[in-house]
Amino acid sequence: MEIPFRHVFRYTQDDVIKFSEVSGDTNPLHLDAEYAAQTPFKRPIIHGMLALSVFSKILGTQYPGPGSVYLNQRVEFLRPLYVDTDYEAVFSIVSTNPDKHTAEISTDIFDAQTRKICVRGVAGVMHKEKF
Amino acid sequence: MEIPFRHVFRYTQDDVIKFSEVSGDTNPLHLDAEYAAQTPFKRPIIHGMLALSVFSKILGTQYPGPGSVYLNQRVEFLRPLYVDTDYEAVFSIVSTNPDKHTAEISTDIFDAQTRKICVRGVAGVMHKEKF
Repeated sequence: MEIPFRHVFRYTQDDVIKFSEVSGDTNPLHLDAEYAAQTPFKRPIIHGMLALSVFSKILGTQYPGPGSVYLNQRVEFLRPLYVDTDYEAVFSIVSTNPDKHTAEISTDIFDAQTRKICVRGVAGVMHKEKF
Repeated sequence: MEIPFRHVFRYTQDDVIKFSEVSGDTNPLHLDAEYAAQTPFKRPIIHGMLALSVFSKILGTQYPGPGSVYLNQRVEFLRPLYVDTDYEAVFSIVSTNPDKHTAEISTDIFDAQTRKICVRGVAGVMHKEKF
């Protein structure tokens, strides 16, 4: 088993606003501190799909990198993610199929400080040279 | 079985550029027409995670709407999505669990013209009032 790929990242409230614009998801839970204060989350949380965009970045640019074709993704949102907070994405190859040039890659996100898991996932990726 | 929820949408190259900035996914397959021409896709394709951001929009603002908590998502990217092309997201409730206020919702994306399926998915969502 190779060493997992690790990548620390954070999103700002500006990123959340930009994602709202691109996606059209203007749910106040992500944008309105007063609204969020009335929910069990207490403060605005990042869109789940914005959190997952780090998967797109890692798969598309680093691990396995340019040339990746995204086939499928399973994901569980276990804990909310907040702005201005460090998270760590940890990727690791679960299995490969050399005939099809595909791999299953575990794609997890942890709070970088508490080490609690926030997102648990598995991605299916094709890469002609890497797998 | 209730009537499926349908939502037609499209993304522009500007949306793709914005998503690249927010996500950090600068894979040339999404941004560089000359690079994309050398691939089996022939022209730049939309980031898979940008395509999925329409799920975030629909679940968070329309179906079931504000108050939704995104629990999980499974998704298969079956065909690429391109800019300036109409797609239709079709959502439909597969099952509900009234005790937990959760539902499984099928989340599919079709090419609005050819009717071919591009993305097949299932989302798990909690909503205190709706389920």
